[in-house]
Amino acid sequence: MDAYTIQDLLVGQRASFTKTISESDVYLYAGITGDFNPLHIDAQHAEKTMFKKRIVHGALLTGFISNVLGMKLPGPGALYASQELAFKKPVYIGDTITAFVEVLEIKEQKNRVLFRTGCINQNDELVAEGTSILLPTKSNQPTNQ
Amino acid sequence: MDAYTIQDLLVGQRASFTKTISESDVYLYAGITGDFNPLHIDAQHAEKTMFKKRIVHGALLTGFISNVLGMKLPGPGALYASQELAFKKPVYIGDTITAFVEVLEIKEQKNRVLFRTGCINQNDELVAEGTSILLPTKSNQPTNQ
Amino acid sequence: MDAYTIQDLLVGQRASFTKTISESDVYLYAGITGDFNPLHIDAQHAEKTMFKKRIVHGALLTGFISNVLGMKLPGPGALYASQELAFKKPVYIGDTITAFVEVLEIKEQKNRVLFRTGCINQNDELVAEGTSILLPTKSNQPTNQ
Amino acid sequence: MDAYTIQDLLVGQRASFTKTISESDVYLYAGITGDFNPLHIDAQHAEKTMFKKRIVHGALLTGFISNVLGMKLPGPGALYASQELAFKKPVYIGDTITAFVEVLEIKEQKNRVLFRTGCINQNDELVAEGTSILLPTKSNQPTNQ
Repeated sequence: MDAYTIQDLLVGQRASFTKTISESDVYLYAGITGDFNPLHIDAQHAEKTMFKKRIVHGALLTGFISNVLGMKLPGPGALYASQELAFKKPVYIGDTITAFVEVLEIKEQKNRVLFRTGCINQNDELVAEGTSILLPTKSNQPTNQ
Repeated sequence: MDAYTIQDLLVGQRASFTKTISESDVYLYAGITGDFNPLHIDAQHAEKTMFKKRIVHGALLTGFISNVLGMKLPGPGALYASQELAFKKPVYIGDTITAFVEVLEIKEQKNRVLFRTGCINQNDELVAEGTSILLPTKSNQPTNQ
Repeated sequence: MDAYTIQDLLVGQRASFTKTISESDVYLYAGITGDFNPLHIDAQHAEKTMFKKRIVHGALLTGFISNVLGMKLPGPGALYASQELAFKKPVYIGDTITAFVEVLEIKEQKNRVLFRTGCINQNDELVAEGTSILLPTKSNQPTNQ
Repeated sequence: MDAYTIQDLLVGQRASFTKTISESDVYLYAGITGDFNPLHIDAQHAEKTMFKKRIVHGALLTGFISNVLGMKLPGPGALYASQELAFKKPVYIGDTITAFVEVLEIKEQKNRVLFRTGCINQNDELVAEGTSILLPTKSNQPTNQ
């Protein structure tokens, strides 16, 4: 895994992660977070709503984005200061989601980087969109900071 | 589970959820999201960082907050428009985390409610803090909307 | 569970284990091992490859074989010295896999047994094939060794 | 994720993956593979054996090696032909394991690469050692092969 310091980053730089979300992902996520909202785990209930089928927890998408930020860009050693994410479209079990991050703004003196983040589905629809602020590692060997 | 319409809500109303976060929670969460940042799953690496021990994924806390919003206040049938969360302190495996939400602002005509959200640990330290915007159900029987 | 000593074993003796591999098996296995190779968890990517669908991690099959060796033949108390396995055909989510082991060669003085091992799918195709070397328990009550 | 073709590889090139193995990893692995050998999941039994404590399934280590081969070197698009692994020392729940792979031999005309593979624990002890044969992708965009 590479670790980027703030000097290594460029505005516009991007990274991403793709996964098909399985029913077991949604059920384990419900089990970890306790979010048993019937929209996610009650197929009979979901059918009667505007969604028609069980949908994936929106908050799960924040984890995909954290994956990309923590493992790829800026990668290990970065501190995660904050994030915001708006949910644009429902994500269904079986959808293939690509989480992406893109460097928007670099404040070198404060060692703070603003990223545009988001998730698209297999039909190239933007299902979630937001920003994250990270403090990249100060060393390319992040365990030594 | 109760479902609150916007008419049922009052500024200052609160709800919460508490869980001790286990090692298996963190490992399953890594497995779902693909976030194998060594800070979370490599005890040898974590020891050499400022954290000294493996820490919980910050993004996991967004799931605890979604639990409270989706199941308690405003509860089933609400649409989750957006959320933001700042990470204030590290959360360690074994910490007992209380996620809370509180009604901050009600825009009845737009059917939008702003919540203050956050997480505190067993020492009453605020480990994460933010806001969420939800559109409550328009019916107390949320499957009929 | 029986435990076989080397004196109990015969060349040609066989045992097996059968399981239909679910999507959740593959996803949990990715989560444990960190093997998020897109062939296993990205349906869109898999479609564009020669496999056309997500395939099961080949290394997962070594666990099915270890199951048979450790629980049935030679069973509890055996030490697992080494194994090798060649992957012959892709295994897909939903395939029913039978892992088998067969005693090939017994070296009584060294207390070492060579097994032929392999996996076949629901169409009787050999999907994996190899050998394993084990040191059976020296006592039929393996905890007393 | 990078994908290496055989032309990109050099003898001696290395990659690795590190994870602290949790009790939940071992229990989920038992659940997926059906390998309920008491050495892994019966603490009372394990205490009476030479190991004194529950040990991690040796076969789980093949998954860590597959992670490195499939995601890092040679990475996506490679075909996994075969592997062999000898188990040298027990791995205990809580051990931090680094799986490594190293290019040993390149047969460009056959598009086959031999890797030395192995796992070391937090005390730099070699707990498993072997080799793997892979056929790297023929294109740096592995979905186009």
